[in-house]
Amino acid sequence: MNRQELIAKIKQKQSFLCIGLDADIKKIPTHLLELEDPIFEFNKQIIDATKDLCVAYKPNIAFYESMGPKGWVSLQKTLDYIPNNIFTIADAKRGDIGNTSNMYARTFFKNMNFDSVTVAPYMGEDSITPFLEFKDKWVVVLALTSNKGGLDFQKIESKDGKKLFQQVLETSKSWGTDENMMFVVGATRSEELSEIRAVVPSHFLLVPGVGAQGGNLKDVTKYGMNKDCGLLVNSSRGIIYAGSGADFAEKAKVEAKKLQQEMAVILSEVEI
Amino acid sequence: MNRQELIAKIKQKQSFLCIGLDADIKKIPTHLLELEDPIFEFNKQIIDATKDLCVAYKPNIAFYESMGPKGWVSLQKTLDYIPNNIFTIADAKRGDIGNTSNMYARTFFKNMNFDSVTVAPYMGEDSITPFLEFKDKWVVVLALTSNKGGLDFQKIESKDGKKLFQQVLETSKSWGTDENMMFVVGATRSEELSEIRAVVPSHFLLVPGVGAQGGNLKDVTKYGMNKDCGLLVNSSRGIIYAGSGADFAEKAKVEAKKLQQEMAVILSEVEI
Repeated sequence: MNRQELIAKIKQKQSFLCIGLDADIKKIPTHLLELEDPIFEFNKQIIDATKDLCVAYKPNIAFYESMGPKGWVSLQKTLDYIPNNIFTIADAKRGDIGNTSNMYARTFFKNMNFDSVTVAPYMGEDSITPFLEFKDKWVVVLALTSNKGGLDFQKIESKDGKKLFQQVLETSKSWGTDENMMFVVGATRSEELSEIRAVVPSHFLLVPGVGAQGGNLKDVTKYGMNKDCGLLVNSSRGIIYAGSGADFAEKAKVEAKKLQQEMAVILSEVEI
Repeated sequence: MNRQELIAKIKQKQSFLCIGLDADIKKIPTHLLELEDPIFEFNKQIIDATKDLCVAYKPNIAFYESMGPKGWVSLQKTLDYIPNNIFTIADAKRGDIGNTSNMYARTFFKNMNFDSVTVAPYMGEDSITPFLEFKDKWVVVLALTSNKGGLDFQKIESKDGKKLFQQVLETSKSWGTDENMMFVVGATRSEELSEIRAVVPSHFLLVPGVGAQGGNLKDVTKYGMNKDCGLLVNSSRGIIYAGSGADFAEKAKVEAKKLQQEMAVILSEVEI
């Protein structure tokens, strides 16, 4: 999916919601466990219930990988089930030397047909550029993450006064364009989002941490939105585990709808 | 495998060689392609031919993942085939927030029984500590990588004069011990290895880039070795693709033997 198509979907659905498909066999409703592929069945019902409310789905690859080969089968079936006009993000946080990153890119883009993959920037340019060689595919580079450990290295200031995450944004944005790169920004603090927008005004930002992780949607949009919206705001557990009974998908829909309605209000305020 | 066992094996075999099992369906001898599991058959023969010459095997996970679910089956079979007294490294370069890193740790340590996993440090402490909770298992943290992109961020100097890779070593070593942490150091330049040993004198270093990538074994050992050896030096392509015919395993053995003999000379010089 290209940038124009993504923006069109955001406008049409009045939503910039991304739903994290972090399906965990220990957390999904127990009545699904007797089915042949409980993880796919869970995702399928979540997708059916929420597909009109979100513009992206983001499976966390660790959850599928931890189930062995059959987890990869569930993941592929899930991906094939997601409607084509919804953006897909393989939350894999890969990154290695060039020929290896090329393998990862082929895995997620060619074999599995994801629209995008999250990638860690530590190994630099040749770990990221192989992902940029695929037409209408995206790399989503970690810039500032919301976890506690994100403070350990990402905010170290260099001699010339730049924090590492600013340097990552500045350097890596030159490897691609706002048509094939996004950044993971776990910031919910206004001053950080302003710092980030100063470096990458036009790129899309993938913002985790709204919902279960407690981020504030209003602040994120106030300081992070641009004229094309430029945001995908993710919620995982807050939506997919809203219920634990037979009506789990209905409950997920209710939570997704709440976020979508908040987003619709925000979008209409800025006339997007 | 614990540190004492690893050191004992290095002494016994007079080798600190790690062989990268980067089996690529496009590069393995064509006569294997008619077999049911060519990748496993390739690895099996490489292992049979080289197991007395090396102390570690390091499958690059990207190569297996790129083959879909059956790649994971080949990987598991390979791992099960590696003798128990050889150290195993899942070169996966994972790293995510705590609960996700915990999933990755379970995948590689519990489900697959690897001894260690390579992890990228960008997301900090909670992305790494879940790997430290498994007894006799190791996390191998990226510090300084040998690829061109390694220069993009890893050598940025902070306000207090520390390069990022030095800060990564210094901060992350406090999360574990030299009994459950190693560092990836793609340095072949003497001054860098000296800088690294100044911060982590006793830890094992995993050094890629000897062989096909052109590193110099003598320099690496002169500046990187400690009293317990403290090095695992990896070679992948230079060994596993030394031949392309029916005798590929024999040719791999010849290349592995050359490196092992160089290592034996070096070890005897320092009386290890």
